[in-house]
Amino acid sequence: MKEIPPQSGVAFEMKAGQTLIVTDIDGEQVGDLVAFAKHDRREFMSSGRTIDYASKIYLSSGDALYSNRSNIMLEIGRDDVGRHDFLLAPCSAEMFRKLYGHDYPHKGCFGNLRDALHQYDIEPDQIPTAFNVFMNVPVGRSGEVKVLPPLSRPGDQTHFVAQMDLIIGLTACSAGLSNNFKFKPIGYEVV
Amino acid sequence: MKEIPPQSGVAFEMKAGQTLIVTDIDGEQVGDLVAFAKHDRREFMSSGRTIDYASKIYLSSGDALYSNRSNIMLEIGRDDVGRHDFLLAPCSAEMFRKLYGHDYPHKGCFGNLRDALHQYDIEPDQIPTAFNVFMNVPVGRSGEVKVLPPLSRPGDQTHFVAQMDLIIGLTACSAGLSNNFKFKPIGYEVV
Repeated sequence: MKEIPPQSGVAFEMKAGQTLIVTDIDGEQVGDLVAFAKHDRREFMSSGRTIDYASKIYLSSGDALYSNRSNIMLEIGRDDVGRHDFLLAPCSAEMFRKLYGHDYPHKGCFGNLRDALHQYDIEPDQIPTAFNVFMNVPVGRSGEVKVLPPLSRPGDQTHFVAQMDLIIGLTACSAGLSNNFKFKPIGYEVV
Repeated sequence: MKEIPPQSGVAFEMKAGQTLIVTDIDGEQVGDLVAFAKHDRREFMSSGRTIDYASKIYLSSGDALYSNRSNIMLEIGRDDVGRHDFLLAPCSAEMFRKLYGHDYPHKGCFGNLRDALHQYDIEPDQIPTAFNVFMNVPVGRSGEVKVLPPLSRPGDQTHFVAQMDLIIGLTACSAGLSNNFKFKPIGYEVV
């Protein structure tokens, strides 16, 4: 298993049929996951398509993550946690300014994804709303959204099976609210 | 007021400070709204950024619609209805095949937006999750999503005030579930 250090990110390739195992090494941490089709990077993982086809906002084992072209990019296999977020954009310097009041903000998962995906010629504007692994975002009756500590415990895993050749971006989340203000690493492995 | 015929779409420009008035002429109809920055069309309206900054999924008067670059594109002014959707991607031929079982599907709001935005050199892959005006999508306790008839009545309006120069795409929705299976026009005016 490889380790993504706290508040950083990586990008890598996966072949169709391979499985990405995301591990919450210490518990209560979030990893922002984005995916692009290797052979045409204009095709990306789409929260809007996925939520529409699933008819639900919380996805887990057996659910598919669709692209903007309505193709299945990843299927969720084993899932020890069962609560992830697909509503919120990756944290960013602008977000830390607006919501946390930081004068000298961290570049956030958005900045980490931007830097990691640069090697694959993916531009910042192409980074979509991420599938936020282990992120716990309940929606109240009036539509209010809260960011609560993840339900994941040390060693919990979620598996993603690639349905096409992919470029993946993955972070150890930089936002305090996402991980109960204890920045931690995220583990990953492609098998 | 101009009229978008049932199951069709338009694209047009707005200048900063202008107001787009969207009218549900006959009631219980939906209009899918997308926006791009006129001077750099890689900047687009982002559901993920907007929901994060608003900390809620249902937006109404006084709320801002943000771009992927965290700039405010539109602010919602008068809103006679107060229930719109920002979770679901525009309906499309693929969606009608998957969710409705149609063998010869309509091109949907996605196809209508694609055709209307072509004149502005906006590619189909750039069309994001739309702000679905008047669309009524409750989220249940377990995250299940339903598409119910809109709460809008004949003549109800929602106003959007442009905060930058914009290219707008707008439809009269093509999906039966969105409008109680009574396809209708949508009215609009820029003042």
